[in-house]
Parts: sequence; structure tokens; C-alpha cells
Amino acid sequence: MTDQATPLITLERDEGVTTLTLNQPERRNSLSMAMLEALSEQLERVAADDATRVVILAASGPVFCAGHDLREIRGQLDQHAAQLALFQLCSKVMQQIVHLPKPVIARVAGVATAAGCQLVASCDLAVAADSARFATPGVNIGLFCSTPMVALSRNVSRKHAMEMLLTGELISAPRAEQIGLVNRVVDEQVLEQATAQLARTIAGKSSHTLTIGKAAFYRQLELPLADAYDYTAKVMADNLQAEDAREGICAFLDKRAPSWSDR
Amino acid sequence: MTDQATPLITLERDEGVTTLTLNQPERRNSLSMAMLEALSEQLERVAADDATRVVILAASGPVFCAGHDLREIRGQLDQHAAQLALFQLCSKVMQQIVHLPKPVIARVAGVATAAGCQLVASCDLAVAADSARFATPGVNIGLFCSTPMVALSRNVSRKHAMEMLLTGELISAPRAEQIGLVNRVVDEQVLEQATAQLARTIAGKSSHTLTIGKAAFYRQLELPLADAYDYTAKVMADNLQAEDAREGICAFLDKRAPSWSDR
Amino acid sequence: MTDQATPLITLERDEGVTTLTLNQPERRNSLSMAMLEALSEQLERVAADDATRVVILAASGPVFCAGHDLREIRGQLDQHAAQLALFQLCSKVMQQIVHLPKPVIARVAGVATAAGCQLVASCDLAVAADSARFATPGVNIGLFCSTPMVALSRNVSRKHAMEMLLTGELISAPRAEQIGLVNRVVDEQVLEQATAQLARTIAGKSSHTLTIGKAAFYRQLELPLADAYDYTAKVMADNLQAEDAREGICAFLDKRAPSWSDR
Repeated sequence: MTDQATPLITLERDEGVTTLTLNQPERRNSLSMAMLEALSEQLERVAADDATRVVILAASGPVFCAGHDLREIRGQLDQHAAQLALFQLCSKVMQQIVHLPKPVIARVAGVATAAGCQLVASCDLAVAADSARFATPGVNIGLFCSTPMVALSRNVSRKHAMEMLLTGELISAPRAEQIGLVNRVVDEQVLEQATAQLARTIAGKSSHTLTIGKAAFYRQLELPLADAYDYTAKVMADNLQAEDAREGICAFLDKRAPSWSDR
Repeated sequence: MTDQATPLITLERDEGVTTLTLNQPERRNSLSMAMLEALSEQLERVAADDATRVVILAASGPVFCAGHDLREIRGQLDQHAAQLALFQLCSKVMQQIVHLPKPVIARVAGVATAAGCQLVASCDLAVAADSARFATPGVNIGLFCSTPMVALSRNVSRKHAMEMLLTGELISAPRAEQIGLVNRVVDEQVLEQATAQLARTIAGKSSHTLTIGKAAFYRQLELPLADAYDYTAKVMADNLQAEDAREGICAFLDKRAPSWSDR
Repeated sequence: MTDQATPLITLERDEGVTTLTLNQPERRNSLSMAMLEALSEQLERVAADDATRVVILAASGPVFCAGHDLREIRGQLDQHAAQLALFQLCSKVMQQIVHLPKPVIARVAGVATAAGCQLVASCDLAVAADSARFATPGVNIGLFCSTPMVALSRNVSRKHAMEMLLTGELISAPRAEQIGLVNRVVDEQVLEQATAQLARTIAGKSSHTLTIGKAAFYRQLELPLADAYDYTAKVMADNLQAEDAREGICAFLDKRAPSWSDR
């Protein structure tokens, strides 16, 4: 039972960087319906929050996120509609991260498995402690990680994804970096610091520009080459109409620091 | 001439792991029409074989597979229809591997070139001897490796694929691992053992679950993100209706080994 | 001001290898309208030049290419149509490289940023000096690298692309090799030599075959698997009707060097 007084997700804001922390370590931060609803709500909140420029997704305790809550699933095995609703909500949350108009950085300590690994893959960037580990172990319990693989297979190459999916085995943080699942691996002692530094670097950019760029990135990825260029050429011409682009270009040519409109 | 008594492909089964071995070393296991037909037939056979949980694709002799049979091709240079039929059959066989309802692991010793390299790329996983080498050398004989590149370019990044295709040069097994063409490189002495161990790990999973997952993997890869999630959310909810998923989840929560329905 | 007598792009031909060199080092070889028009024109010229088998894209001076000309952009900030025309021309030039019927190799010394990095990503192959560096720093000036990311994200994995795009930071040549943006990194002293050697290797192939293969490569990449095979099976059967394929196969089987039709 979760203590009603303890929020499932905590939110902390530090100069434009908002950290959302999965906060149910005693349940291995598993993505129960309640946790998914809480995460969805917090993502909506930071999406709309003008003071949030960059989001860090973190977790408390020794497990980053163990995926779905198997006790909850077992409790409604005969209810197909309820199961479908669970996976649809989970898929919605993952796409909320992708479509969030601000960069999202996963900060991973401990083990990230199944939908927990999917969370990491769904973030724009990921920093991991050297002790972190990753797996898509659904195959071990007869429930293939079919939704997690959507995010995984859009991060790493086929053979690497298939190896994780078919064996269900844990991979190390350095291996995760090697195959492209995370950007950087750092000593566990400096994980918070390294992630905060990366977040601050990005938070120093124009928010408006980050929003334009992130949205365009994921959209153009799904287009054929010629369409991707037609689309992004317009994005760039429109981007130039924004105050921040004008300020940025003038500042650069005048060799001074830019002053963004929302700061 | 092939001895009529020697099968082009041998089949060996060991506790759920079936090994198909290209068995024409004196012809460098080239993919003649006869070899492709034999391979297609064997793939159909293992697809339907309930006792086969995982397939290993291997080859006898010092060459894994040298690609198409150039003598055969030269013998019918003026027959466009025959050539087209050859490449269509080859393309069908490669897709049979992708669509086979069981994981397929390439076990590569020696040289895998052209359609031989494509075979490796088409398998779900690949283990290579440290002495193995890979190339798409069609460009050297005026016949670009256009069908092999379909599989190659879905395994490795563009510049890596283009380098192999435009230079036609051999790459080493460690390089193949680095770019994602194979999963693991091991000492040639332990290649069989290492591949068997990987196969057994996977054969220990529920066959039904592997079938669901493999099919969903390749299907979702070709969908836009939102469609991929719509599709896989349904796959997971359906997966949960299977006996093996219920058994797997209960076994996990009860801290015991699962007992799969087909064992 | 550019000296009218100095061409924006120089062209040098050495036995089938044509080197196009961006030649405005005092402007950091930036892609002004004039430079893009010159490059487009030169690409058309080499595309039609029977004596050119392989193209090297190089740059003079310490900067490979700094991307768009920000002074020019600043001068017409209020002209949306002019900006759109600029990005459309740039997108056209990048696609000219992709569709050029001959392999194009980027030879990168110095810094390649924004559309300069896009140029490298758009080439079929890239060789970099160990001192070369790469970035998509548009985010630093409020103008996200939205067109550059089309090429970048088709070369490297998502998290790697996003890290470059969101931080705007320079990456080293070895890092660029690691993530797949360039094929090879060599000592700056031997950059020309190493690139020339790679170009000569490819120039030794049949031009007709290279043209078939390059076009098929990019086309099949955008097709679903089954369609990609339908398409490339036909490409191969057609390829076999060409004189060079017949010569290449016969030469191979006769253990002699092939003699290509266009040499």
C-alpha cells in the first residue's frame, strides 16, 4: 500500500530544470495504472509550465523502474479491456515524453527493465550511472516486451535490440552506451551532478528554439528524404521569424551573449 | 557435381535447437537455385516443427557462404526471366528467415560474402568466429549487391553499409560486431559452444511468446511511432491471454521457475 | 568581398576522381546563396561528366564549412520568401549529392558545423582528419539545425543526434567515427592521401555498376522490406543485362582482371 501522503512522483524545480522523480522505491517504481496516471499528469504539467525549460526524469531508490506492476496485472488477468487500457495508457505516456515541447533527460541509477527500459529509450537523452543496468526481460515471464521494443528498436540497431528482447538478459551501462541506448555513463557518485550540468547547458538555450527543434526532429524522422527536406526548410524559414533567432544571430555576429525572450 | 547422396543442407536437432547447415563446401556453399530451394524447404520444415524452438544457421567447410553461384548465373546470362526468378527466390528465402516464427541465429565461421553476408544480416542474431570475415563484393564483378544491401542496410548505419558496398572489401569479425552486423565474436574454437549456449538460453523461453514477439518486432519497425504503439499495445493485451503469460507471471511472483505449455 | 577572379569552388580531376573544393576560406566556406549555387552547378557538371567516376568534396583553409552565411541571413531577416528559398536551395544541393550518379566522399579537415556538418552527413562516405570536429550549433543562436538534422539523423542514432542538436557542442573526429558520421579518421598529414586511395579503389569499379547501386541503395532504404526486395530483385536482374556485369562475372570465373566498358 502506498502512503496517501507520499506522492508517487515528486517534482523539483531548479532554475528552469524540472526533475520528475518516480517515488515508489518499495514497489521498484513500477508503472502501475496509478503511477502512469501520475506521470502523465506531471508531464502535462511541465509541458505547460513556462518556467520549465528542461526536464530530468529520475527515480528514487536502488531500482530506476521495474516496468509494469505484475501484481496489478495478475489481479485482472481475465479482463482484456483493462489490460489493453493499461498498455494504451503506458504507450500514451511514452509518446507524451516524445511530444513534450521540452527536452527530457533520463537520469538512470540502478536497474531499468521492461517498460522502465522503454522510459529511458523514450527520453531525448539519457545519462546513466556506471552501475546502471538495462533489460527487456518480458520473454522470461511469457510476456514479450512488445511495447518496450517500439522505443528500444528506435534507439539501437536490430541485432542489439533482438539480443535484449530474445535473451531477456541485463546489459551493463557501458554496453548500453556502446549500442546507443544512453548518451553518457558516469561514476554513480557524480550522476546527479553530470545530469544537472547537461540539463543546464540545454536550459541555457532559447526555449522557443528547443521546442521547434524537438518537434521537427521526431516528425522529419518519419518522412521520406524529400518530404523531410520540404518540411524542415519551412521550419527553418519560420524559425527565423522568431525574436530569439534574430537576437541569436545578431548576438553571434556582434560577439556578445544572446538574451532570450523568455528569460 | 553434387553427390546425389549428400544433402545440400543438413538438419540436426538437439533439445529444441535445430541446426541447419549449408553443406556444399566444395562449392563454397553458394546459393544456387538448388541450394536456395533446399534452404527454403528446410525453413518451411522447421517453421512447422513443434519440437524446434530456435534455429541455428551454420555452414560446413572454410567458407560460410560465397553468395550466388556465378557459374550458374553465367550459364543463363541471356535469360532475364531466369535471373529474375533467382533473385526473387533468394529474396523470398531471406524473408522466410525474417518471418520464421522462431528465432534464427547465424553461426559464422569463415567468409560470408554477397548473399552470404545477406544471410547473416537476415538472421535475428549472429555469432561469429574471430576469424570470420564479411563483404558485399558484387561491385568488383560489375553486379552491385543490391539485394544483399536490403538486409545489410537494415542492420548497420548508412556510411558503414555504403563503405562495404562501394569498396567491396572484406571486414573483420570485430569490425562487423562494432557496426552491428553480428552480436558476438568468439574464439573460433568455441564458436559452436557459444552459439549453442545462446540458442539454449532462448530455447528455454516459451515458444509461443517468442513467436508473438518476433513477429511483432519486424512489423512495428515499419510503422510510424503512433501506429507502432497502437499495434503493440494490442499485441501485449492479447499476449496476456495466453497460458504461458499467466504461468510466467504467477511463477515470477511465486518465485518459482515457470513451466511452459509446450514443454 | 570575394575576389571575382577566385572561383567559389575549384574543380580538379585526377584519373576519374574529381575533387570539388569549397574555396572561400576567408568566409569559412559558408553556404551563402552564391556558394550553394556554385556547388549545385558543379554537382550538375560532374554528374554529367563521363570522365568523373568518383567525387571528393573538400574545402580549403582551416574550416571545412561553417554552415549558412549568417551575415547574409541577417541582411534579409524580414524576407521570409528569401529565407525559404535559401533553405530550399540548400536542401536541393544536399539531395543532389544523394542522387548524384557517382559516389561522393567528404574529405574533412577542420570544423564542419550546421549545414557544413550536413554536407558531410549527405555524402556517401566521409574521411576525416583526426583534428576535425563536428557540430550542429544552431540551437546556440536560436536557429535550430532543422535541415541539417535530416541528414544527421539518417546517419547516426537518435540519442547521438539529439545530443549534438540540443547541446550544440563540438564532437571530435574519433567520436564522429564512433557514432557513424564518418567512416575513417586519419592523421591530418595523410588525409589527402588516404581519401585519394579510397577514391581510387572505388574509381576502379565499373561506373555503370556504381550508378545502379548508389541509386538503388537510397531508394530501397525508404521502402518496407517486401517492397525493397521486389525492387532490388529487379535491379539485380537488370544489372546482369549490362555488359560490365557479364564481363565482371566472366573475368572473375576466368581469374583475370575485368575490363570495364567505360575505360
